[in-house]
Amino acid sequence: MTNPTAAILIIGDEILSGRTREGNAYWLAGELLAAGITLAEIRVIPDDHATIVGAVRELSARNDTLFTSGGIGPTHDDITADAVADAFGRNIDVREDARALLAAYYASRELEFTSARMRMARIPDGAALIENPVSVAPGFSIENTYVMAGVPSVFQAMVASVLPTLTGGAPLLSENWRVMRAESEVADPLREMAETYPTLSFGSYPFTMKGEFGTNLVIRGTDAALLADAYATLKTRFPEA
Amino acid sequence: MTNPTAAILIIGDEILSGRTREGNAYWLAGELLAAGITLAEIRVIPDDHATIVGAVRELSARNDTLFTSGGIGPTHDDITADAVADAFGRNIDVREDARALLAAYYASRELEFTSARMRMARIPDGAALIENPVSVAPGFSIENTYVMAGVPSVFQAMVASVLPTLTGGAPLLSENWRVMRAESEVADPLREMAETYPTLSFGSYPFTMKGEFGTNLVIRGTDAALLADAYATLKTRFPEA
Repeated sequence: MTNPTAAILIIGDEILSGRTREGNAYWLAGELLAAGITLAEIRVIPDDHATIVGAVRELSARNDTLFTSGGIGPTHDDITADAVADAFGRNIDVREDARALLAAYYASRELEFTSARMRMARIPDGAALIENPVSVAPGFSIENTYVMAGVPSVFQAMVASVLPTLTGGAPLLSENWRVMRAESEVADPLREMAETYPTLSFGSYPFTMKGEFGTNLVIRGTDAALLADAYATLKTRFPEA
Repeated sequence: MTNPTAAILIIGDEILSGRTREGNAYWLAGELLAAGITLAEIRVIPDDHATIVGAVRELSARNDTLFTSGGIGPTHDDITADAVADAFGRNIDVREDARALLAAYYASRELEFTSARMRMARIPDGAALIENPVSVAPGFSIENTYVMAGVPSVFQAMVASVLPTLTGGAPLLSENWRVMRAESEVADPLREMAETYPTLSFGSYPFTMKGEFGTNLVIRGTDAALLADAYATLKTRFPEA
């Protein structure tokens, strides 16, 4: 695997309490696949300063890119920006360009620019802003780390402006073959195929339908011709699909 | 927080590729909350031996309990059992009681007990089996780590047999108050309440409805009387809900 790698760090007590079913990681996983970036890890952690600092350091060091989601809003438990600044040894303060964006937005809506809202203009030194076309309060990037809001519409808009700037590898292609046989019956022939095609990856995903066992067989790889060849072989080995 | 802690480790390439939307962690998060166990981290990693070994060691050392999901089926990419054995420095081999369970199951269905199926009887030395009422192939526990299947119905059945044996703390209670105000407008009063009630936790979760901004305010704590008092105060501070 020579594709660049990424990790996703989801920050928020509400995910760990089971209150919110997290969807940003699932959505971004699909985007990264299409962009040829290998997702190496998803991690969900609470709104805790030391935990965020540790995870940002570890995951940004180990991967080409780190994406974070959550904790950059206006409330007292929005501590991601300060923790990311700490992780990279930067100072953080209200920055004029971010402050001006927010001031204009609240003025246009005749809303007060409170001290809570001012928190959203706190940006680590040396960071670049990430545009927020939905609700203005920006995300930011620092070194290889992209810090984005957890609200799904804002997260997706921020990723859309970030992803084209990252260098991906060859997109990962896949073929899916559905057979009505139990996973344990396809295991041996599938392992033989994995040995025949060592540069492709073979996965099997069991399901049940009307009381019968079935398995989705998935072949993944970056070489389209090789994938097509393996897929043709797979279909002859499992003609019953 | 004196409640015991847990981590969830999800193992599987199919989650990181965006192919499958993981649901076991979300479901178990709710079960742990009800049991009074604090979920400290969810981590999703690929089917890679060294990565699994490292994550199992780290998360089992740092938490009272570790739950894993995925990678204990019959195919070549089901490597969780071997990796968990390595993480705890144990040998692993086919174990007679697990083998007998599977042999009886396949015999009753007149199916061949293949070498692939035999893989599912590989259990680390000293582990205890976790019953699988759905498809027989057992999970296992070793020290504080519970190794379970990724298929949701099997995962849930295994958790149901494990969870009552774990010692939880006081269940975390919560109250939810929905206000049609932007999160940035509730931030200051909410921070004041968090200062007034330092043993409770206060969260705010923004949403939009018909173009209007709203926020769910959530108070969490283990002291029912204190929670009721704080909830009454919250409702007087935000009477517009």
